[in-house]
Amino acid sequence: MNPDPHRIDPAGLITAPAGFRAGALACGLKASGNLDLALLLADASCPSAALFTRNRVAAAPVILGRETLPEGAGRLRAVLINAGNANACTGERGLADARAMRAGAAALADCPPEEVLVLSTGVIGVPLDMAKVEAGLAGLPARIGPAGGRDLALAMMTTDTRPKQAALALDLPSGARIQLAGAAKGSGMIHPDMATMLALVTTDAQLEPTHLAACLRSAADRSFNRISVDGDTSTNDALAILASGASGHAIDPRGAAGAADLAAFEAGLTALCQHLARAIVRDGEGASRLAVVRVTGAASAAEARQVANAIATSPLVKTALAGADPNWGRIVAAAGRAGVPIDPARMALDAASGFVEVGDPGGAWLRLFEAGTPSAFGEAEAAAIFAAPELTLRLGLGLGAAEDEVWTCDLTADYVRINADYRT
Amino acid sequence: MNPDPHRIDPAGLITAPAGFRAGALACGLKASGNLDLALLLADASCPSAALFTRNRVAAAPVILGRETLPEGAGRLRAVLINAGNANACTGERGLADARAMRAGAAALADCPPEEVLVLSTGVIGVPLDMAKVEAGLAGLPARIGPAGGRDLALAMMTTDTRPKQAALALDLPSGARIQLAGAAKGSGMIHPDMATMLALVTTDAQLEPTHLAACLRSAADRSFNRISVDGDTSTNDALAILASGASGHAIDPRGAAGAADLAAFEAGLTALCQHLARAIVRDGEGASRLAVVRVTGAASAAEARQVANAIATSPLVKTALAGADPNWGRIVAAAGRAGVPIDPARMALDAASGFVEVGDPGGAWLRLFEAGTPSAFGEAEAAAIFAAPELTLRLGLGLGAAEDEVWTCDLTADYVRINADYRT
Repeated sequence: MNPDPHRIDPAGLITAPAGFRAGALACGLKASGNLDLALLLADASCPSAALFTRNRVAAAPVILGRETLPEGAGRLRAVLINAGNANACTGERGLADARAMRAGAAALADCPPEEVLVLSTGVIGVPLDMAKVEAGLAGLPARIGPAGGRDLALAMMTTDTRPKQAALALDLPSGARIQLAGAAKGSGMIHPDMATMLALVTTDAQLEPTHLAACLRSAADRSFNRISVDGDTSTNDALAILASGASGHAIDPRGAAGAADLAAFEAGLTALCQHLARAIVRDGEGASRLAVVRVTGAASAAEARQVANAIATSPLVKTALAGADPNWGRIVAAAGRAGVPIDPARMALDAASGFVEVGDPGGAWLRLFEAGTPSAFGEAEAAAIFAAPELTLRLGLGLGAAEDEVWTCDLTADYVRINADYRT
Repeated sequence: MNPDPHRIDPAGLITAPAGFRAGALACGLKASGNLDLALLLADASCPSAALFTRNRVAAAPVILGRETLPEGAGRLRAVLINAGNANACTGERGLADARAMRAGAAALADCPPEEVLVLSTGVIGVPLDMAKVEAGLAGLPARIGPAGGRDLALAMMTTDTRPKQAALALDLPSGARIQLAGAAKGSGMIHPDMATMLALVTTDAQLEPTHLAACLRSAADRSFNRISVDGDTSTNDALAILASGASGHAIDPRGAAGAADLAAFEAGLTALCQHLARAIVRDGEGASRLAVVRVTGAASAAEARQVANAIATSPLVKTALAGADPNWGRIVAAAGRAGVPIDPARMALDAASGFVEVGDPGGAWLRLFEAGTPSAFGEAEAAAIFAAPELTLRLGLGLGAAEDEVWTCDLTADYVRINADYRT
């Protein structure tokens, strides 16, 4: 959450780290005819880790993914992704279809099926058209090429208006340079709980699966787990990382420089995931505005997160954001119903335009509310902050020293239009 | 929740029970010039009870109301209501203003200030224009008259499109007939927690405050506490009942026929509160459709309510309702993230048009999902149900025998428009 020391390439491809190739095509699952089937292929079996949705109604590919990576770690050679159909609520048939996709990709990758992760996203409750998927699988090898990384990010999209990808060259304390890259999709049904929508990360560093899994959990908790578009957790959320080791540099905390390198790797991975998570919120369905909801002075980080979540998911706060309306009373009211024993008399609410990072001394804060009473702020100044494309809200509870934050977007009439008409 | 044995007059006035008068005028708190200040006046001091919001950011009149009715019960002579300004987040000044309103109404009623309840609703965080309120108070006595009950219901409204009022003549097991009546407002920031938006109930029965309070809690839990428009709990929620005793009939469970009469009174009060609560959801901001979300087969009523709440507050479910789209996958997905250990393989989801009461054998149910798999239903039949102005969703969890339900409305582009522009 500190000012980002990493120089992230916002157009970096998932294939930037050595040892990975990718490709995608349109097999007909999207009515639009856009790319909808993608394959990420590692040159060899890779240490890998993944996090999946905590929704009790898990999609077939998520059920299969948990089998593939018990404890969230293992080895992967390939990831097959389809959009246009979530393969969720599809029963035994859905599970058989996911297994068939896994077997098909394994044949392409020339690896055991247990080394393939399948990810699906799209409409819930409709069986997959496997004839289209099988035909698509047959065509995929010919699509593996230089444009494959870009195509993969495009093929993941559903209601997304733009692809989300980024890459990062990381200089480790030991002197080695490794590459990290990621691609993500997500626009609606976004309120991750220990995972996110679909996101895929690659690196050419060499790490053991358990270390990868620990870094991934930590990074997810400070990135994808902080975002909310609409408070709905998906049936298909998944975040996976594959480490090809092709850089030749091993990161092992048991070695001499290993602990420092691992910390640097985790920080780089976190920065990359934060970049992708913020891109998801910025592209939230119908969204015109991103808001950072930071809660400080809490008794615990968990309570800070609970209050931030109540504000970030409040339809009244989110519609006020859509209207560029500094209606701070709704922010305070949402905090009041968060289930945390807060006291309005100790609270202070500030706002600033832009995404003000923690520790950034440059935030031009405007006080809106303090000690149970409206502050004497200029209406025009407040209106300018709430009209900015990104803004930061900082609510001090005056109860302790803990803080946490959630990143959200506004709720617009376009969100309603997109979701009232999604299936039909 | 059983088929209503009570004949409720949907146009009944709050002054229908003997012993009450009312009046309202426009004092200028609403920019529209509509009625915004109302007084309910009892002929004498009445046993009374009230429930208030659990939002930690309570409005000044709520703070004062808790002082007036410690333990939620006591005696009231008058209730003063204003709309257009919630007097919330207004600090010490707000509390002083609420006290001044209480003193002004007490002077009109010729009673101690401790026998006046003040209720406010409207915008948060703006100090009351007390000059307007004081001038309004001076004019109120002249407005007490035959139209006063209707005017009171109109004066409570904010974004409501219509007044909500009802009355009920109740024949008790002991042979006595008593009157009950209620008025309510509410359209947005509706997700009551132990209380509701503003609702006022009168009766000419004679009951002790503690019995009134117990009946009120039970009725609220089966009516106002079941509704959600947008998941936001208000800073001003309040529900109060005043019992004039003017019917001459005392209901005392310590007497011979008292227990049966009290049970009948509680059932009548519950039916009246359910009528008003449903009217609030039907008039939800921007709403075009009411949905009953009933969860059956749960391990406990609390878990049933938790799952029903997750569905009833899901933006994706509510936008699908707006689009008349039988997108049942979103209903199942919302249930999956409710935090209850459900198993999709045991679930069954049915839908029927209309508000199908519990125990009503006439519901024409269409099965949408069962045992983890979509059911083979007719798309046209499903579309017709979801296009109805009211529909009932019934989700069986297959885990136990408990059930509960929540009443919600759809989330439309009009909701966003109303709330993006509310303050400005």
